[in-house]
Amino acid sequence: MLRKLLPREYGFFEIFEEHSRVMVEASQELLSLVSTGVNIETKVKRIKELEHECDTITHRCVDALHRTFITPIDRNDIHRLIGRMDDVVDFIDAAADRIHLYQITEMTPELKSFADILVRSCEALQTAVKGLRNMKASQTVLDACVNVNRYENDADTTLRSALAKLFREEKDPIKIIKLQEIYAHLENASDRCEDVANTVEGIILEHA
Amino acid sequence: MLRKLLPREYGFFEIFEEHSRVMVEASQELLSLVSTGVNIETKVKRIKELEHECDTITHRCVDALHRTFITPIDRNDIHRLIGRMDDVVDFIDAAADRIHLYQITEMTPELKSFADILVRSCEALQTAVKGLRNMKASQTVLDACVNVNRYENDADTTLRSALAKLFREEKDPIKIIKLQEIYAHLENASDRCEDVANTVEGIILEHA
Amino acid sequence: MLRKLLPREYGFFEIFEEHSRVMVEASQELLSLVSTGVNIETKVKRIKELEHECDTITHRCVDALHRTFITPIDRNDIHRLIGRMDDVVDFIDAAADRIHLYQITEMTPELKSFADILVRSCEALQTAVKGLRNMKASQTVLDACVNVNRYENDADTTLRSALAKLFREEKDPIKIIKLQEIYAHLENASDRCEDVANTVEGIILEHA
Repeated sequence: MLRKLLPREYGFFEIFEEHSRVMVEASQELLSLVSTGVNIETKVKRIKELEHECDTITHRCVDALHRTFITPIDRNDIHRLIGRMDDVVDFIDAAADRIHLYQITEMTPELKSFADILVRSCEALQTAVKGLRNMKASQTVLDACVNVNRYENDADTTLRSALAKLFREEKDPIKIIKLQEIYAHLENASDRCEDVANTVEGIILEHA
Repeated sequence: MLRKLLPREYGFFEIFEEHSRVMVEASQELLSLVSTGVNIETKVKRIKELEHECDTITHRCVDALHRTFITPIDRNDIHRLIGRMDDVVDFIDAAADRIHLYQITEMTPELKSFADILVRSCEALQTAVKGLRNMKASQTVLDACVNVNRYENDADTTLRSALAKLFREEKDPIKIIKLQEIYAHLENASDRCEDVANTVEGIILEHA
Repeated sequence: MLRKLLPREYGFFEIFEEHSRVMVEASQELLSLVSTGVNIETKVKRIKELEHECDTITHRCVDALHRTFITPIDRNDIHRLIGRMDDVVDFIDAAADRIHLYQITEMTPELKSFADILVRSCEALQTAVKGLRNMKASQTVLDACVNVNRYENDADTTLRSALAKLFREEKDPIKIIKLQEIYAHLENASDRCEDVANTVEGIILEHA
């Protein structure tokens, strides 16, 4: 019972920061994967490991949430925040996995654009998530959130031009199916980054 | 601080009504697009503008939510409501965008059916959302919610027959991929309309 | 008004148990469908009926939620729980429906693996949901939740090998599109099973 009165020891902020650190690493691995096209299998395996790490962190967060009586942030916001962060890494993993599974060897410039956007989004989210700890609506943190929204617009534009090019240039429907799926995972990852940014922004405004 | 005690000035009801008005307009543009098949580019651009407008309204709503201490409706319901309304317009925009991007010139009767269902759903949602203001469980408002549920069943049926026909008649896999994606966006739009209706119905029953 | 003070009569636990019972039956019908490949139409129709039954149960739950002042479990958890349980059956229905619609006659071993995983997941969820009633964090209930998480990993592995095999062996893109959609519905069903298990686990830990 006493335990329930000591929320601090569960460290939600540490959990978010740890998750965001792994998220950044996963996005960087993906960028390296699609930029170089070498050691694909090793990098895909590494991303899978990072995805498992995030699952563990997420599970620890939900567990802490249910054992903590008074949380420093609204319970639903904690739930949404960790859930969406986890989705980001799940989609990065799915994209990497399919690149390997479908034996995509020719990395399109659009794959690189997506990975680039995701690295910048994840890094901005790491900055944003750090801002939760002191709850100051600092310009740095709010700027990071705004930037993630802008990156998501870039991802939308990238998806549109990637699909336009794919259907214009590729005549093999099976290759189209494969790349369409991979692009969709990447766009979903970016979508979830935006959800994370909006949740962080909301929490900070609420406490400001 | 005083500001936090004056929720009324943020006008959640006005925000919902404004969003539903733009939602109706987007659905009507889509219907016009797939009914006539002319001026496609202009109409797609107009839908994109409406989608941006909805983003702004949604952002204003979430912002108001976090700045308001006491809300007239449960916070999570407000969040769900505006989020799902925004999804409806996002999916309408995605469908319109792909029609243009994939250069679909022959508008199938199923596209028209979907757009027709969406116009009726969005109009019913506009009626439903208006009912939130006085929280009377009026028959008009509850009927509107029930109707949206019925339209979603129609959308399901439309999807099934659209897919059956597509796979029966179309032999070009690339055309199948394109239309399958567009149909999926339209069905998702209708799904989210049902979520909005259920949320409104729930809020009204709770306050009845 | 008095009604609002008598939550017990609405029986959330009975509602969850009833839904889980229908969910198990739907998964069993699906397994029978893909195992035998006979009487497809009858079985698909039966699954559709079960899906409608679940819609009714879900609607009753949401209705009860909004009419009940004090709930035995956090309102958002009730909402999430019934919503995700309903999603499971929706995806099972979608998969069955497409098998019929696309006239899939040759049932792949992967279809059978998926259905098998879903039966085990739904049965474990039935055990887990029963545990909500006494809120004892019994080993049986927690084990059931852990098992569903394990089955979802199996579903992931099944999806990967199903896709690998599909793209390796099948040369007809239209058949690929059809099976890819069915596999996606099945994987989504399993994903939602995991959400249900995590929600149940969370509720039980919170009350322990």
